Amino acid sequence: MPELRQNIITREWVIIAKERAKRPDQFVRPPRSSTHLPAYSPECPFCAGNEQMTVRETYRVSGDNGWKVRVVLNKFPALSPEGDRVRHIEGIYRSMTGVGINEVIIEHPRHDLSPALFTVEDMTDVVATYVHCYRELKKDPRIEAVIVFKNHGESAGTSLPHPHSQVAGMPIVPSQIRHRMEEAIRYFDETGECVFCTTLRHELRDRQRIIAESPHFVAFIPYAALSPFHLWIFPRRHASSFEDIFDHEVADLAAIMRTVLAKLYYGLNDPDFNYSIRSGLARDGQREYFHWYVAVIPRLAKTAGFEIGSGMYINPSLPEESAQFLRDVQLP
Amino acid sequence: MPELRQNIITREWVIIAKERAKRPDQFVRPPRSSTHLPAYSPECPFCAGNEQMTVRETYRVSGDNGWKVRVVLNKFPALSPEGDRVRHIEGIYRSMTGVGINEVIIEHPRHDLSPALFTVEDMTDVVATYVHCYRELKKDPRIEAVIVFKNHGESAGTSLPHPHSQVAGMPIVPSQIRHRMEEAIRYFDETGECVFCTTLRHELRDRQRIIAESPHFVAFIPYAALSPFHLWIFPRRHASSFEDIFDHEVADLAAIMRTVLAKLYYGLNDPDFNYSIRSGLARDGQREYFHWYVAVIPRLAKTAGFEIGSGMYINPSLPEESAQFLRDVQLP
Repeated sequence: MPELRQNIITREWVIIAKERAKRPDQFVRPPRSSTHLPAYSPECPFCAGNEQMTVRETYRVSGDNGWKVRVVLNKFPALSPEGDRVRHIEGIYRSMTGVGINEVIIEHPRHDLSPALFTVEDMTDVVATYVHCYRELKKDPRIEAVIVFKNHGESAGTSLPHPHSQVAGMPIVPSQIRHRMEEAIRYFDETGECVFCTTLRHELRDRQRIIAESPHFVAFIPYAALSPFHLWIFPRRHASSFEDIFDHEVADLAAIMRTVLAKLYYGLNDPDFNYSIRSGLARDGQREYFHWYVAVIPRLAKTAGFEIGSGMYINPSLPEESAQFLRDVQLP
Repeated sequence: MPELRQNIITREWVIIAKERAKRPDQFVRPPRSSTHLPAYSPECPFCAGNEQMTVRETYRVSGDNGWKVRVVLNKFPALSPEGDRVRHIEGIYRSMTGVGINEVIIEHPRHDLSPALFTVEDMTDVVATYVHCYRELKKDPRIEAVIVFKNHGESAGTSLPHPHSQVAGMPIVPSQIRHRMEEAIRYFDETGECVFCTTLRHELRDRQRIIAESPHFVAFIPYAALSPFHLWIFPRRHASSFEDIFDHEVADLAAIMRTVLAKLYYGLNDPDFNYSIRSGLARDGQREYFHWYVAVIPRLAKTAGFEIGSGMYINPSLPEESAQFLRDVQLP
C-alpha cells in the first residue's frame, strides 16, 4: 500500500508510492548525447575573456590569473533595479511596481565545469559570494526577501551551460514563504522549539536518511521528500538567516555542497537540478522559530494534473533507499 | 518595468514580465513531429476493442455502437482502494496509510482525438461522467477531497495519447487546498462576499480578460495568471462543490470547455495542457465562501530555481493580450 507522509515543516503531504517505487539506480540518467563542452566558448557571455558581453559587474573575487567569480546584473532581469515600490489597489486588482534586484553569479571562468567538479576552494569562493550578495541585497530598503538559487540543465530551466547561479531581492514576501513562516511560528508556539532544530535532532538519531555530515552541516533526504533525491542541507547551529553564517562555516558549507552535488553527479550521471537557499525575511532579525537551509531538487520527475489539482506530490522513490544510495556513492 | 500582481483568491504574487513579454503568437507550438495517430492502436489499453487490457470497469456511458465513455480503476493507482485510514505519529514523523481511489476516465473510444476535436455531445458525456464519479467518490467516508484532472501531452505528464482523464479521492485535505479555503474564509469574513463571485463580477465588467461566455459559465484569464494562457472557467451561479452542478448546466459546461480547448488547439497548435476541477471539500456541505471552478493550464513555460526558491512565478505574457488572442481565434 502507498504511504502518505506529512512534512512537519511545510505541512505538505506526499504520496510515497512504495510498490511503484523505482530502485535508486533506475534514476540514473542515460549518458548525455550532447558533445563535450569546450573549456571556452566564444559565444558565451560568462566565459573569461568575454566580459564585455555582460552588463554591469557588481562584485568579483580576484585570483592570480584574473577573476574567479563574477557577479553581474542580469541582462534580462525579472525585476527592475530602478524605481520605488508603489502599490496600486483598484477594486479587487492589486499590483505593485516590479522593482527588485536580480544578479547573476558566474561561478567559474571555465565554461565546461559543473559545480560537482569544482575544487572545494572554487566552491568556497562561490558560497562566500552568495553571502556577500545576500548581505548587499538586504541593505536595500525595498527588499523583503532574498532568494539565492541555481538552475543546472535544461529541465531545471537554464539553457546556458556555463556554471552560474542567481540572486534575487524581492519587493514583497511571497505567499509560500509567508506560509512556511507561519507554520514555523505555530510549531514554536506549541512546543517552544524550532521545528528545523527538532527535525535535525531526530534525523541524526534515526540516521536512515542522512547523506553526509560535516562539522557544521548535515545533508539528508527529508522524511516526506516531494520528489526523488530531493534533499536538504541544514546548519547544525540555529540561525534564522543565511547572512548569519560565520566566516569559518563558509568553507564547510562549500565542502558539503560539493560532496552532495558530486554524489548526484557520479551516482545519477549528472542529473539536471535546482538548488535554493531558504532563509528568513530580510527585514527580520534573529528569530527563534526559523532556520535557514539549502534545498537541492534533482529534476527527475514531472508534475502533472494530479500535482496541479491537489498541490500534493507523488514520490516514486523511497527516501531511505535514496539516502542509502547516495551515502554509498564513492567520490573520486 | 515589470509589474507584480497579486491573485486575491490564492494571495499568490506573480511577476508579469511586461517588457520581456512575448506576443501571444510566439507561444504557438511548432507542428508536432510525431506521425499522425491511428484511430485504433492494438497496444492501447483504452481503445475500443481492447477492453480486456484494463482493470475493473466501474462505469460506462453506452451508445448505439458500444461504449462512449468508460471509467476503469487505474492499473497503477497512486492510492490503494482497499484498507482503512490509519494515522501513525512517531516523534516528528507523521504518516498515514495511502488509501483512496484513483480511476481513469476514457473519454472516447477513438485513439486519435483531442477533446478539442470532440463534438459537444462527446464532451457532455465526459463532463456527466465527471459528475457521476465525483458524487460516487464522495460517498466513500474515507475521502476528504475529490480531484478531477486531465494530462494532455508529454510535458503535461502523460505518455498515453488516447484521450483520458482521472479522478482521485484523497484521504486527507492537501495543504494547498486547505490554504485556499482559509483565504476564501478570510475574504468572506472581511467582506461578507464570496471572493470568486466578486472576481467574476469584476471580470465581467472589465471584459479585458474574458475569453468566452455561455449561459451558465464564463471563461477568462486571471488578472494574476501564473503562466501564459493559464485560464479559469467559473460557474456564474454560486455553488461550492462540483457535485452541486445542475443537470441543465452539464452540457453548457461541456460546450464552453470544448470551445476553450479548441481555441487553444487551433490558436496555439495543440499545446500540452492540464486541467483540473477545483471544488469544495468532500465532507463540507454548501458553503458561502467557496466556489468551484475549472483551471486550464497550458504547459508553455518551465519552472526553475526562481519559482522553487520563492514560490512565485514569472509570467512572460500579458493576460489581457492572451485573452484577446484567444477571443479572436475562429473555430472551424
